[in-house]
Amino acid sequence: MPFIDRIRHCNSFDPARVIPLWAGEHRVGWLRHDNAEVLSGHDRVFKVGGKNARLLAEGDADTVSRTVDEVVEVLVAERRVPKWRNETFDVAPRWGEKPLFRVDRGAVPFFGVRAYGIHVNGYRRDRGGYSLWIGRRASNKQVAPGKLDNLVAGGIGNGYGAAATLAKEAEEEAAIGPELIARAIAAGALTYRMETKTGIRDDVMFVYDLEVPPDFMPRNDDGEIAGFDLIPLEEILERIRATSDFKFNVNLVILDFAVRHGVLRPEDPEYLDVANGLHRPLD
Amino acid sequence: MPFIDRIRHCNSFDPARVIPLWAGEHRVGWLRHDNAEVLSGHDRVFKVGGKNARLLAEGDADTVSRTVDEVVEVLVAERRVPKWRNETFDVAPRWGEKPLFRVDRGAVPFFGVRAYGIHVNGYRRDRGGYSLWIGRRASNKQVAPGKLDNLVAGGIGNGYGAAATLAKEAEEEAAIGPELIARAIAAGALTYRMETKTGIRDDVMFVYDLEVPPDFMPRNDDGEIAGFDLIPLEEILERIRATSDFKFNVNLVILDFAVRHGVLRPEDPEYLDVANGLHRPLD
Repeated sequence: MPFIDRIRHCNSFDPARVIPLWAGEHRVGWLRHDNAEVLSGHDRVFKVGGKNARLLAEGDADTVSRTVDEVVEVLVAERRVPKWRNETFDVAPRWGEKPLFRVDRGAVPFFGVRAYGIHVNGYRRDRGGYSLWIGRRASNKQVAPGKLDNLVAGGIGNGYGAAATLAKEAEEEAAIGPELIARAIAAGALTYRMETKTGIRDDVMFVYDLEVPPDFMPRNDDGEIAGFDLIPLEEILERIRATSDFKFNVNLVILDFAVRHGVLRPEDPEYLDVANGLHRPLD
Repeated sequence: MPFIDRIRHCNSFDPARVIPLWAGEHRVGWLRHDNAEVLSGHDRVFKVGGKNARLLAEGDADTVSRTVDEVVEVLVAERRVPKWRNETFDVAPRWGEKPLFRVDRGAVPFFGVRAYGIHVNGYRRDRGGYSLWIGRRASNKQVAPGKLDNLVAGGIGNGYGAAATLAKEAEEEAAIGPELIARAIAAGALTYRMETKTGIRDDVMFVYDLEVPPDFMPRNDDGEIAGFDLIPLEEILERIRATSDFKFNVNLVILDFAVRHGVLRPEDPEYLDVANGLHRPLD
């Protein structure tokens, strides 16, 4: 399978299948038509028309969040949203701006609000090449159980910035302390928009590179990762091409690593489509 | 001026001001309406309608190129195209595919065909920070005379790939020999689409990072660069913000370097728009 197909898989979003969700003057989400239909039954909180939906709740972020939560509670009971994750994501007009409200992580794709996460390429240089520490996701994970993952990855919960999430997840997922994670280098942002069973994932991944010492061994403390392996990048790229072993969006993070470090090069006819395709335009 | 405005400046393309130029089944260029009007006078070579223009010339790349050249000769005589550059660019359906024809570099924006170039960030690490070697373009350059530039940059002429252009320009522009340039690392592709006096620049920049030794001193041999300075990256970023000293697209190359090396970070509210905006989608 060409690499570009891994990128296409993460960009299955079809604008014809959604309507925009507005909060005041801001487009904050993308509602699939079936989800919009469901929200039209919550007409104290959402006003749903044929081409637009609008959040009616007004007030400060706490007030709006409580109102939205009441709807999410019903969606969970009706099994339209898989389950409460008890972790909330900020919804802001744009990255870096003040949040308008918060929503439970499990309901994020239902509303199609933008979500932010961090991904860490934990790597070693071996004989001129690269090897990456790869985690195997626990079999009881809600999303992509058993799939291969970056050394550290996690969503940016409400009130956390990128740097705080990086430090927290590094500690919880791989027992990486503050001294080592301080060496992680922010290396860009990848974007994709994907339709899932629940709705729309409109995701931003802040990527970091962390060169780890030869004696480094990750250890998982929160039960979310079943184990880690150090794998040569060339072998990882072959597996990305030939298998679906990696979590859908982790394919993108590793392709970006290969692009930035000259492992994929302009001489590859796929290069430009891959390098460019990792960055879906924001709106 | 926010960094994002440097990116917007390079993306001044307005689809309402152009029609597509087709060669067979391939959209190969963007013709501004005034340029389309001019080509309608060359109706043996171009068929121009209200919404589309078509290259009528058929045959192998040499044959089509000769026919297009006859039109370019008239455009140069009429001063619609600044002058012959005596350097031709390949026009292919996509990067890595067989060229359909070639066109003189000076006429590339008139037809709005995609052009490819290489840019090299020549850098040193100093006390935990970065300094970049920056060239001053000669005052007689046709494009952006006197502006600041990367250590090495150049367009990919017909028959040259990215790697051959990199080696050739490194030698000519900065007296960098094969041994040093072999250490340059391909680090991605930046894209923008800009309207200029002549027409449309639909540009792809393959970017490379080259860490140079402390005793390295660039020397220009082709008269295109008036001189070089080693400048701390923080100072460069300040100048990008405060002045128009840098060539329009070099601003983008340096912002990308700052993004990839963690000098700009997600904590900056502008970060996501900059990191994402450097990658205009291809079509």
